[in-house]
Amino acid sequence: MSVSLSLLEITQQLGGSVSDSSATLINRVGSLAFAQDGAISFFSDTKYTAQLKTTSASAVIVKPEHASLTSLPKIITDNPYAYFAQLSQLLNPEYIEVAGIHTSAVVDPSAHISEACSVGVNAVIAANVTLGKNVTIGAGCVIERNSVIGDNTKLEANVTIKYGSQVGQNCHLFSGCVIGNDGFGYAENIVSDNQKYWVKIPQIGRVIIHDYVDIGANTTIDRGAIDDTIIEEGVKLDNLIQIAHNCRIGAHTVIAGCVGIAGSAIIGQHCKIGGAAMILGHLTIADNVTISPGSMIMRSIHKAGTYTALMPFQEHEAWLKTAANIRHLSQLTDKMGKLTDKIKVLEEAIEKLTSQRQT
Amino acid sequence: MSVSLSLLEITQQLGGSVSDSSATLINRVGSLAFAQDGAISFFSDTKYTAQLKTTSASAVIVKPEHASLTSLPKIITDNPYAYFAQLSQLLNPEYIEVAGIHTSAVVDPSAHISEACSVGVNAVIAANVTLGKNVTIGAGCVIERNSVIGDNTKLEANVTIKYGSQVGQNCHLFSGCVIGNDGFGYAENIVSDNQKYWVKIPQIGRVIIHDYVDIGANTTIDRGAIDDTIIEEGVKLDNLIQIAHNCRIGAHTVIAGCVGIAGSAIIGQHCKIGGAAMILGHLTIADNVTISPGSMIMRSIHKAGTYTALMPFQEHEAWLKTAANIRHLSQLTDKMGKLTDKIKVLEEAIEKLTSQRQT
Amino acid sequence: MSVSLSLLEITQQLGGSVSDSSATLINRVGSLAFAQDGAISFFSDTKYTAQLKTTSASAVIVKPEHASLTSLPKIITDNPYAYFAQLSQLLNPEYIEVAGIHTSAVVDPSAHISEACSVGVNAVIAANVTLGKNVTIGAGCVIERNSVIGDNTKLEANVTIKYGSQVGQNCHLFSGCVIGNDGFGYAENIVSDNQKYWVKIPQIGRVIIHDYVDIGANTTIDRGAIDDTIIEEGVKLDNLIQIAHNCRIGAHTVIAGCVGIAGSAIIGQHCKIGGAAMILGHLTIADNVTISPGSMIMRSIHKAGTYTALMPFQEHEAWLKTAANIRHLSQLTDKMGKLTDKIKVLEEAIEKLTSQRQT
Repeated sequence: MSVSLSLLEITQQLGGSVSDSSATLINRVGSLAFAQDGAISFFSDTKYTAQLKTTSASAVIVKPEHASLTSLPKIITDNPYAYFAQLSQLLNPEYIEVAGIHTSAVVDPSAHISEACSVGVNAVIAANVTLGKNVTIGAGCVIERNSVIGDNTKLEANVTIKYGSQVGQNCHLFSGCVIGNDGFGYAENIVSDNQKYWVKIPQIGRVIIHDYVDIGANTTIDRGAIDDTIIEEGVKLDNLIQIAHNCRIGAHTVIAGCVGIAGSAIIGQHCKIGGAAMILGHLTIADNVTISPGSMIMRSIHKAGTYTALMPFQEHEAWLKTAANIRHLSQLTDKMGKLTDKIKVLEEAIEKLTSQRQT
Repeated sequence: MSVSLSLLEITQQLGGSVSDSSATLINRVGSLAFAQDGAISFFSDTKYTAQLKTTSASAVIVKPEHASLTSLPKIITDNPYAYFAQLSQLLNPEYIEVAGIHTSAVVDPSAHISEACSVGVNAVIAANVTLGKNVTIGAGCVIERNSVIGDNTKLEANVTIKYGSQVGQNCHLFSGCVIGNDGFGYAENIVSDNQKYWVKIPQIGRVIIHDYVDIGANTTIDRGAIDDTIIEEGVKLDNLIQIAHNCRIGAHTVIAGCVGIAGSAIIGQHCKIGGAAMILGHLTIADNVTISPGSMIMRSIHKAGTYTALMPFQEHEAWLKTAANIRHLSQLTDKMGKLTDKIKVLEEAIEKLTSQRQT
Repeated sequence: MSVSLSLLEITQQLGGSVSDSSATLINRVGSLAFAQDGAISFFSDTKYTAQLKTTSASAVIVKPEHASLTSLPKIITDNPYAYFAQLSQLLNPEYIEVAGIHTSAVVDPSAHISEACSVGVNAVIAANVTLGKNVTIGAGCVIERNSVIGDNTKLEANVTIKYGSQVGQNCHLFSGCVIGNDGFGYAENIVSDNQKYWVKIPQIGRVIIHDYVDIGANTTIDRGAIDDTIIEEGVKLDNLIQIAHNCRIGAHTVIAGCVGIAGSAIIGQHCKIGGAAMILGHLTIADNVTISPGSMIMRSIHKAGTYTALMPFQEHEAWLKTAANIRHLSQLTDKMGKLTDKIKVLEEAIEKLTSQRQT
């Protein structure tokens, strides 16, 4: 399917103003560097002014203060990137699976499937599952008993939803993610010094996912141990993330790939957590906190801001020295203390000598 | 299903003593903070004394030395947390899938399925697979040829067991885990400076998993290159863990989510490996070693204890300075050496001046 | 199946020279330490000379300069490890699935399946998919619309290929990997200070995988945002790796498990990236760069070499001191500056005193 829109038609749907009454037709989006004829791009950072000057895009989305930087046909708006995203959605409508239940799908008679749902090849819908309107269940998905999937939510192929999970409306779950897996909870039973083993604590909570949540490929969200694990509205999770039992992720927080969040951590709203960051269990992170990629957070953070914990990388030979120095940092600090003392002694000695001379 | 038990009935099954002849009926577990009427909680750390005083739980499990801290009906035992786990198992019996092979499952005629097994929707049981008694194979699982699954072991939906794997009794494998995948073994073939490519080394070992092992969602355990990869009895693995070829994980070791263990690492018994920790290949880790979360272990550890390698996190601006200082740590150390030398010179000079004055 | 070969037959197929006209028959490979009668091993590092002396292998592959170190029957070649890999392939031919489409597989009538393909149990081949010759699609795989899989490529069970992906020839994709998932792209729409939410940017690029690429279990490779994500020839990816949208991984680069590569990173050819390393987005890494395991790369690397960023691990008590010292490293550096100043003052004072005395 191909969509072609004039700038005027675009602004009629998405707002913003058009620079001129241009009849330029737009049929796709592109980056400034690679856009071709028929494509629209966006510009929001003067770092890319050179690309703006040379782009082959047919039109560009800019802020009011940047309108004079280009003579291309343009749409003027305060947030070009968000506008670009919405326009791209318009030009690239989501693929709609044909409604209906594939003959190979196995749907329990007690399941409630609302109108306009699509249940894919070999999908499994277990007892007492409820699918809202317009829900898409991809091929090979398994939705276990008593789960609820809200209206317009889409599950890509091979998603696993464990029993009793609740997924909100307009969510998007990607392939291989596992929702509602047992949390990692064991108590050590110490029979004797030589006989210790782990006793599983039944994980009787659920996973509750609010509306407009996206969950990346192969990401895992564990069910609560006793209470529930909760993902609030508008949260976006990338691939290969682990959310442990009893976490609560605040609304509109975004978490990049490979992040691990340990049990019972409470993350605020509008946080941004960089890739491969790790957050220990039972911590509280305030709203509007940014965690840099790869950073391990070991204590609660009560104040908005950006937090980082990273070793700077070096050529290996230089790093070997750095590592040795880090290992001896305590001694370095001790030595510094001793030098400080010595200097104090020297200062006094010199003062004495000087005063003696002056007398 | 709902189970209600008196404290006396509980201790008759699990041991411990009851504080009084209380007829209190317990039908669920709860945390001190959130437990309601009918729930039993546990107390093992005086840090939570305030919660103990105000809990709405109907009863509590305590150590003998804490019995006097509460007037609630109580069960007294040496390890309240392990007791709580066992009691929760009693009150929350595992969901039992209906025995039988679902009509949509594809089972090779040469497979041996023991009594009371449940083979779920669309599951695949390949040639010469053996399932012990009471085995549960979830929907969409693929069990490849010549694999063996021991009695009472449960595979959740969408587990993949590669050919020739052996899984013990009473194991629990969670959705998306992949057991027996080829290890990552390649030799570089250098035809010329400009032509180098990787030759795969066939991975002809197996994965052997002993009894009472739990394996988390989307965790991967690779088959051995030549010999086998072995997971010993009672090991508990969380989600998104990578165990490379030829590792051996010692009995009753627990590994939290997002951990990576490189090839041929030998991990001792009763170790505790924190989330996102990494262990390099060909290392040996002694029994009873604890690795802190996020810590990279680069050398063997021969002594029980807790080991850590973490950058402390800071506000980003402070960290920028720290990072710059770390990069220049060698110079700082060198400078310290020079200052030490200079102070020595100064001390000698002052001693000389002082002695001259005294003469 | 069992293959038995004499050393002469082996060298006729793989090159190298035989030490003698030995009729020794080889039927499997083994490590020096564990090889048994009938097995061949390899030796390329004098670190293992002791094992070479005591091995029970029937023959060994050695470099010319090491030929005199053993009296065992031997094959002499410049690169014993690569030779061993090739020989192991000969002795352990890959398991060939029976050609044909399993009756339970669901293949769209518009799909093109070339000769000698094997499509496994419950596999899904969607509209307009093209499979080259000799392609193997494992049980439970889902190949979405418009994807192309090249000749001789093998997908293990439960692989997901999203729409429009292109996979080259002779590739090997392991269970649970997800190719062509939507990239993680959102623009923040700021309606007011209190109302901010994320707008999805449609991910309209593709994943293009060249020939001879291996992709590990549960690894995820995201489709491009606008342009494509590209994995060049001969790249080998281990398990649980995340490759974000618009990355390009250069030919013959190997990446170990648990690595994350953020969006639009360009990795050179013949790089070696250690396990759990992380590479930030929009970076460029030169050819022949080695990244140590667990190292976070935050800036582009323009020069071949080995780069590292790791905290050394310590016993926890020692680490606590180190961490405190790192947090105060700026102050330590400041203090060092002040001491340097003080020493300068002292030196001047002493010089003055000394010169006064001398006058």
